[in-house]
Amino acid sequence: MIARRGILFIVSGPSGAGKTTLSSAALHTFEGLSLSVSCTTRSPRGGEKHGVEYFFVDSDRFDGMVRGDEMAEWAEVHGHRYGTPRAPIDNAILEGRDILLDIDVQGAAQIKRSYPDAVSVFLLPPDRATLEGRLRGRGTDDEATVRRRLENACREIERASDYDFVIVNRGREEAIAQFTSIVRGEHARTGRMDPASLAAFVLGFGEGS
Amino acid sequence: MIARRGILFIVSGPSGAGKTTLSSAALHTFEGLSLSVSCTTRSPRGGEKHGVEYFFVDSDRFDGMVRGDEMAEWAEVHGHRYGTPRAPIDNAILEGRDILLDIDVQGAAQIKRSYPDAVSVFLLPPDRATLEGRLRGRGTDDEATVRRRLENACREIERASDYDFVIVNRGREEAIAQFTSIVRGEHARTGRMDPASLAAFVLGFGEGS
Repeated sequence: MIARRGILFIVSGPSGAGKTTLSSAALHTFEGLSLSVSCTTRSPRGGEKHGVEYFFVDSDRFDGMVRGDEMAEWAEVHGHRYGTPRAPIDNAILEGRDILLDIDVQGAAQIKRSYPDAVSVFLLPPDRATLEGRLRGRGTDDEATVRRRLENACREIERASDYDFVIVNRGREEAIAQFTSIVRGEHARTGRMDPASLAAFVLGFGEGS
Repeated sequence: MIARRGILFIVSGPSGAGKTTLSSAALHTFEGLSLSVSCTTRSPRGGEKHGVEYFFVDSDRFDGMVRGDEMAEWAEVHGHRYGTPRAPIDNAILEGRDILLDIDVQGAAQIKRSYPDAVSVFLLPPDRATLEGRLRGRGTDDEATVRRRLENACREIERASDYDFVIVNRGREEAIAQFTSIVRGEHARTGRMDPASLAAFVLGFGEGS
């Protein structure tokens, strides 16, 4: 076995592109892959568990983490703060385990700056009509909200070329196959292997000669 | 559809690592992938067809191709010359088709210098005993020949870290899955997409807003 560092996979894209479906499938496919859990200052909603959906922390603890540079990125949304803690990512990479981050476009950009070796994947809807359909499909929002979401999505989509990979989500199975291929492919990348471990493996062939 | 350049995939590794099995499986899996056919000055053997196993050319033609820089790499083996013609590779890349090159370690190094964007994959046997077994398995060679092959293989294996990807061939299915994942993953790599085509696709979401 050739040892390697763990890999941080970032899945991003506009709301309605299918990030959650892709992430769930990857977590199901790769035993060694875990999901990065965010911290938030908002209260748990029905059934949410600390450490599963989020780490629920109070405002003081969140402030402390930000001040201590323990957050790889954070943002305030509707008066609550959300952040990605560094420790689980750093530990995973060091221990050779992969970790997956399902994150919005603004957060993804900050993460990639902090972790330039991360593999960033942008998930695109196949076309505008599909995107609009998915955003409307929730059926709970008024026209103004839908239009604002669409405008946000279009602005976010313009960032696609900043990512290492772009997947056009033409269908669930195809997009999943594409993403799991990216993950499996990265596992064989020489630059991610531990050079000493690769060298030892290679030298093993010379034994007995 | 986002247009992209074609990709040159190089599969290399020592004799007995399983290059041919891997290449055949990939050609079977990816419709758009074709195999690079070498030129040789040796005569066709029973059943070999011009343009399938090799392009059979005479010495003058081979010389002319070398002088005209039409060979991406070439070498002399047992008094015959073998070379990889540039034209099929260049045409494939330009037309957005992928092309696969199953080549020895010396040739692969020359190709990678000519085509730095090529994706190079080194196939390793799982251990020395398996490599030795596979080299002996042919059963037609004397001990001195087997030992020379083993020594060559060990020297070639030392080049593994020069490649973009390393696959340890622990089993046919696993190695094939790994290689097809590398191919499928590269298809989604942003850096291989045509920037104008990606930009047009992205701008398409803004229409109607």
